[in-house]
Amino acid sequence: MPDVRKLLRAPKNYKIKEEDAGRKPLSSGDKATDKQTVLEMAQRISALQDILYAQRKHKILIVLQGMDTSGKDGTVRGVFGQIDPLGVSCTSFKAPTELEKSHDFLWRVHPHVPGNGELAIFNRSHYEDVLITRVHEWIDEAECKRRHAHICDFERMLAETGTVIIKCFLHISNKEQKARLEERIVDPDKHWKLRPEDLEERQYWPDYLTCYTDAINATNAPHAPWYVIPADSKTHRNLAIASLVLETLESLDLAYPAGNPDYAKLKVV
Amino acid sequence: MPDVRKLLRAPKNYKIKEEDAGRKPLSSGDKATDKQTVLEMAQRISALQDILYAQRKHKILIVLQGMDTSGKDGTVRGVFGQIDPLGVSCTSFKAPTELEKSHDFLWRVHPHVPGNGELAIFNRSHYEDVLITRVHEWIDEAECKRRHAHICDFERMLAETGTVIIKCFLHISNKEQKARLEERIVDPDKHWKLRPEDLEERQYWPDYLTCYTDAINATNAPHAPWYVIPADSKTHRNLAIASLVLETLESLDLAYPAGNPDYAKLKVV
Repeated sequence: MPDVRKLLRAPKNYKIKEEDAGRKPLSSGDKATDKQTVLEMAQRISALQDILYAQRKHKILIVLQGMDTSGKDGTVRGVFGQIDPLGVSCTSFKAPTELEKSHDFLWRVHPHVPGNGELAIFNRSHYEDVLITRVHEWIDEAECKRRHAHICDFERMLAETGTVIIKCFLHISNKEQKARLEERIVDPDKHWKLRPEDLEERQYWPDYLTCYTDAINATNAPHAPWYVIPADSKTHRNLAIASLVLETLESLDLAYPAGNPDYAKLKVV
Repeated sequence: MPDVRKLLRAPKNYKIKEEDAGRKPLSSGDKATDKQTVLEMAQRISALQDILYAQRKHKILIVLQGMDTSGKDGTVRGVFGQIDPLGVSCTSFKAPTELEKSHDFLWRVHPHVPGNGELAIFNRSHYEDVLITRVHEWIDEAECKRRHAHICDFERMLAETGTVIIKCFLHISNKEQKARLEERIVDPDKHWKLRPEDLEERQYWPDYLTCYTDAINATNAPHAPWYVIPADSKTHRNLAIASLVLETLESLDLAYPAGNPDYAKLKVV
């Protein structure tokens, strides 16, 4: 396996390039083979999470960000769907409530970070507060810069207290989003996933690219790295994220806790 | 399939009978067949949960209670391990913290009940506060009675606000618990699951049976039913709980939301 973390890591001064969303650097060239590989990797992730849970040493935080229809939900099912519910949590951050808006933007996020032995998935995250909010000018540029700094501080604190952070930008092209939205329009069974506002949001596409680019560059630290996932192909997206998570987990000193010699002498009456 | 809810429902004036923990009323008689059935049911539960999530109408709460080693963790993996992490949460209630103890006993539980479209699993629950607490006389009989009433009120409120509640008592025999604890002692890889206190707790076995019996009888309502799961056989335990959950889900009006005719006219630019 190639060094996936190196391959997918957002480089310094990263700039989102539209044409790259369709590339498949990790593909075997055969879709059925890739799908099978994803399934096996998802099972391997589940097995490693079992050790993680028993060991209660590491905390894993997966942040999934991307445009509408970029496949965040599909990633949760495809890559993390095999994990024992005991040790995984998935938090979907929607538009904030009035109560949430009355606090700092990290207030609603903090309670959902993982504890020892846990793997937490953020389906959208605190990054929304420097993306949609900035695109629509609900915050000014100075506030956005402050928030970038707040995010850096928050994530460094998480990392220094034992959290392994994996941030994935699910990168789809404008053309692929159009196709996926049209699919949802044509199929009445998918109308529940569709919000007419999402279509209007497409006019801000270039602004979103700018905001994503700036957010990634401002917060792309070694202890909280950003990975760019080419996501026009759903299979390749899952293959890339599964590879990334697996490689990260395998780099940790995961092991079941050692036996306790005193316990071996216990008698059950 | 038999009417599993009727078959497993704790009867009026229920009394835990030790000898019943090994019975297998749902078994085909062949273990491999039963295991395959559990797997298929777990996948079907996952498929129905997908509709539940899309529909955002029903809330499902599964309460798992049982003696140490009765198989609560194994149930979570075996029955609910196929569900998309997007729509399932599992909360394991351990010994309460000082902060939790400074509140009423439902305070730490309430934030974890399911919302619309969610399935929440309680791995232990508010019932611990009328079990271990009563066995050790940390509360007196009058307080225990009040708590039974508090639980009834709380669960009725949850049911009346749209929560489908399934409470499972995982019933193992004293002999089976002994065997499972001895297994954990012999295998150093299982020492992390073992707490020497658990062995001492066995002296209170008859008291636990009394407290479970009373709790079940005091809170066994049609809208919050208790089911008794014969759990000496792990496969049968999973088979029984999967059947119960599946039958309950299939009794609901689960359906993907209808298409919106206005949406069909939308254009993506």
